[in-house]
Amino acid sequence: MKVGFIGLGNMGSAMAANLLRAGHEMTVFNRSPEKRRALIDLGARGAETVAEACSGEVVITMLADDSALRRVTLGEAGILDTLGRGATHISMSTVSVELTRDLTQAHEQAGQEFVAAPVFGRPEAAAAAKLFILVAGPAAAVRICQPLLDAMGQRTFPLGTEPATASLAKLAGNFMIAATIETLGEVLSLVGKGGIEPGTFVDLLTSTLFPAPAYRTYGALIAESKFQPAGFAAPLGHKDVRLLLAAAESLRVPMPIGSLLNDRFLRLLAQGGESLDWSAITQLAAADAGLARIGRSGA
Amino acid sequence: MKVGFIGLGNMGSAMAANLLRAGHEMTVFNRSPEKRRALIDLGARGAETVAEACSGEVVITMLADDSALRRVTLGEAGILDTLGRGATHISMSTVSVELTRDLTQAHEQAGQEFVAAPVFGRPEAAAAAKLFILVAGPAAAVRICQPLLDAMGQRTFPLGTEPATASLAKLAGNFMIAATIETLGEVLSLVGKGGIEPGTFVDLLTSTLFPAPAYRTYGALIAESKFQPAGFAAPLGHKDVRLLLAAAESLRVPMPIGSLLNDRFLRLLAQGGESLDWSAITQLAAADAGLARIGRSGA
Amino acid sequence: MKVGFIGLGNMGSAMAANLLRAGHEMTVFNRSPEKRRALIDLGARGAETVAEACSGEVVITMLADDSALRRVTLGEAGILDTLGRGATHISMSTVSVELTRDLTQAHEQAGQEFVAAPVFGRPEAAAAAKLFILVAGPAAAVRICQPLLDAMGQRTFPLGTEPATASLAKLAGNFMIAATIETLGEVLSLVGKGGIEPGTFVDLLTSTLFPAPAYRTYGALIAESKFQPAGFAAPLGHKDVRLLLAAAESLRVPMPIGSLLNDRFLRLLAQGGESLDWSAITQLAAADAGLARIGRSGA
Amino acid sequence: MKVGFIGLGNMGSAMAANLLRAGHEMTVFNRSPEKRRALIDLGARGAETVAEACSGEVVITMLADDSALRRVTLGEAGILDTLGRGATHISMSTVSVELTRDLTQAHEQAGQEFVAAPVFGRPEAAAAAKLFILVAGPAAAVRICQPLLDAMGQRTFPLGTEPATASLAKLAGNFMIAATIETLGEVLSLVGKGGIEPGTFVDLLTSTLFPAPAYRTYGALIAESKFQPAGFAAPLGHKDVRLLLAAAESLRVPMPIGSLLNDRFLRLLAQGGESLDWSAITQLAAADAGLARIGRSGA
Repeated sequence: MKVGFIGLGNMGSAMAANLLRAGHEMTVFNRSPEKRRALIDLGARGAETVAEACSGEVVITMLADDSALRRVTLGEAGILDTLGRGATHISMSTVSVELTRDLTQAHEQAGQEFVAAPVFGRPEAAAAAKLFILVAGPAAAVRICQPLLDAMGQRTFPLGTEPATASLAKLAGNFMIAATIETLGEVLSLVGKGGIEPGTFVDLLTSTLFPAPAYRTYGALIAESKFQPAGFAAPLGHKDVRLLLAAAESLRVPMPIGSLLNDRFLRLLAQGGESLDWSAITQLAAADAGLARIGRSGA
Repeated sequence: MKVGFIGLGNMGSAMAANLLRAGHEMTVFNRSPEKRRALIDLGARGAETVAEACSGEVVITMLADDSALRRVTLGEAGILDTLGRGATHISMSTVSVELTRDLTQAHEQAGQEFVAAPVFGRPEAAAAAKLFILVAGPAAAVRICQPLLDAMGQRTFPLGTEPATASLAKLAGNFMIAATIETLGEVLSLVGKGGIEPGTFVDLLTSTLFPAPAYRTYGALIAESKFQPAGFAAPLGHKDVRLLLAAAESLRVPMPIGSLLNDRFLRLLAQGGESLDWSAITQLAAADAGLARIGRSGA
Repeated sequence: MKVGFIGLGNMGSAMAANLLRAGHEMTVFNRSPEKRRALIDLGARGAETVAEACSGEVVITMLADDSALRRVTLGEAGILDTLGRGATHISMSTVSVELTRDLTQAHEQAGQEFVAAPVFGRPEAAAAAKLFILVAGPAAAVRICQPLLDAMGQRTFPLGTEPATASLAKLAGNFMIAATIETLGEVLSLVGKGGIEPGTFVDLLTSTLFPAPAYRTYGALIAESKFQPAGFAAPLGHKDVRLLLAAAESLRVPMPIGSLLNDRFLRLLAQGGESLDWSAITQLAAADAGLARIGRSGA
Repeated sequence: MKVGFIGLGNMGSAMAANLLRAGHEMTVFNRSPEKRRALIDLGARGAETVAEACSGEVVITMLADDSALRRVTLGEAGILDTLGRGATHISMSTVSVELTRDLTQAHEQAGQEFVAAPVFGRPEAAAAAKLFILVAGPAAAVRICQPLLDAMGQRTFPLGTEPATASLAKLAGNFMIAATIETLGEVLSLVGKGGIEPGTFVDLLTSTLFPAPAYRTYGALIAESKFQPAGFAAPLGHKDVRLLLAAAESLRVPMPIGSLLNDRFLRLLAQGGESLDWSAITQLAAADAGLARIGRSGA
């Protein structure tokens, strides 16, 4: 298929490379053009403008946040202006439900197809084509995209015809991880102060009731207070919690754990934690217990 | 080994039966004596008094709560009064850190060994000898108990020489489950109101980041609002959260999610939820969102 | 002084009338023009357009929310376009810190003065010229406005030269009231269930430690569960809490009671409380305690 | 009247002195006997034992906490053992609802009268006979006590015949103050970071909506971060919040602000705040906002 790809960060580059390997004809664009190099070496065509990336049947976006996706899509000479009628925009970024809804409407009015397909997985999973992909959009458009999604992920979860639903599910998944982090922070502060090595307790949890990646990955980071370098930086975690709460606000769903998480992130950022991993909110529970860090016993 | 077993509820009966099968010489006691019947049929000796169950090298208790364990151990003609010097009391109930500390001291003064060994697992796991057992106590005593623990569980997690530590870890594990339940309640209210079938979202979670028993078991119950019959009744869940908060209070560890859970259970019980499963606290998040139940879309 | 007044709701009408009585030459505008009638009868000139109300030295706005104030000020043929250079816009509405900041910048660029002067007080206080007025803006501009403020209020609190500060203080004051309401809801549920008449307890509070209007007014409403007709409707209360949290978010100040209030309002609205007074969030604490209403004893 | 007085701390001494001044025949007891000196100089008889203080028609207790009152009342040679049949014990300490209930039952069985009469007011108010007194107990007993209460306080609030009710109301009042402190902490962190002097904002509040002692007293302390010497130490504040939550637990009333306060006090104590005034919990909101203290602007 003839595919444009916009947004070549750690995730996007790996995803575009897998599409190339699957034999698709790729045109790649990035605001900082040097990021295109590796893909051009693999056989992609480098685009100088968004418009060039919109000349095929499909354009995929994988961008940092709402404002980047809004600009690339709705800005002058953006996707909306340059993608062909009947062609499809697959939006794979983690963005607000509201923006996804706005783009759905804009593309519909422009006679273009719009599919939301955000992902779970870190750069390693993207490189290994092991992403989990949440997809929502018109059935026919989703069907056309399926081979592309299959080349990037290990499994696709269809969530209906309304693209905003996929954005909501993605934010909800991130909320689940953030809630797990906070819960681990509280419990490891407790057992640590009570004389149990945090690593021992994490092993106990992940060997019994919680043998899940979210607990293994974050349990290890938290037990060792290893918050740098950030795998997913605190300001991004905060952003996703705020997008979740905005969706909850508009659906009128009170989420007390969501509110607690928002307060935790605000505090972490107010205290200078910008460059830390989002799991560093667990330092706050430790500090509240009078601990210098989780894992150091004694007050 | 010559072993007494006190407390023949669903858990205790299955555990005692496994000890019998492993060839131990069992004497079993229960306040309602008819519960001994099945074990006597399997070859156990029925005790008429606590004292009779304390005539061997080891006595195991598996009781409902602090007050039962306190009475059986410290009451007149109880374990403390009747167990031989050098013999061991293995306490497998989920009880307060404070009581475990009291019993540790009492047994020490009486020249008896005391080991705490609470478990994770439901009656089915107990029957299949698949329990996870957390054990803490003097090293020599724990070593002697190990064959008994092996006959009841699939794995033992040693947590040091201080029995109270095992009680703390058990309460901490139950807190993790309760926090998972609350988190699922909030997120399923959100996605449900946003148009995603709760069952679909649970499947998504447990197929990706959270492939863990706690999420599978409770995700299914919550998605179907199936809170009766109670696997673990709300008043027991509340009791465990309060024991956790009492431990946290005495260690001076603030636990905001623990406080939220306590408020949820109080509300559920105030509104008449005594007979429901503890996962019914998720009804509260649904009600707060204006939903009659999780899984019914529309306001 | 030659003064325009835009926004003739319950508050604005009373304030404009007091300015008339103080001898100012008033031109009044309202989107629904019939609201001008009473003031015209008192001697005001009725304006057909925003522009007409902007022909004097000062224009005052008293509007419902951000979107109304934004439209009237920045919209086509709005205040920014039509107010003379050197003339002053006094913004008395309760609006976001962000909008106040935007208007400050816009007026500065247009060579106009801008003063924020939100108020505390209900329509009765406005009618009696007993408002409390928070004022912030350039010192010279505030000095010119002072006689106008004196004609509308009983006291002015100067808050410096940055208009946004007055908006922040106003939102903070409303937060204090909302926190008082929630606190009263919790405590009256408790003492009510414990056998004390809520009215008796309110009398006790307001006769001892809390002899303050906020406690008297809301204590009486809550003790009697009198939430209709709404003095200040729940959606407005929710809006103000959200504006407060937005300001707190941008200043990075976690406010756990603010988060709790937001969750309360979301729940009240999700459950159909649109038309109730904002103090109806206290019904939620009562319901959580299993009470049909505060003040009805028994479960 | 012939009155015994037990507990001569700052409050008790002042109260006993006022009873002396009103002409009552006082016998005073304190565990550290030197505290009796000043009262003996004023004409009181010094008692060597609790029993000696129980020889009159009334004995009043004003003690530090549950454990002191329990020991003095129910301990060997305590009030229960030594007070005459038909004589009255007036319990003025701030203690748990549960203890008040226990004492009610014990005195009833012993044929003695029991009245709970906790107070609002600091030592200065006690000295000036300006206390507010909450009283509950059998009507006849309360009637007999009234002249004594009148000699100690400026107003008595009758709360029915069940002594526990007065204890509940006292704890509820302290909760109102603690909630006010927390709310002030959050709001002053916000406005302080937003550029408003905390003292200015406190003045604004107490000049408008909140002209109440609780706001004046604590507003001033918080705005100046003056937490030493402690007027009411943090551990006492924590204790009262826990007694409140225990009462709420037993009545099944969730109190989210109560839970928040408990977490705040735990944190303050875990971080070494034992000797600070209870209003020092406001430091925590300031720290969460990245402020070294309320009132210092800038991050």
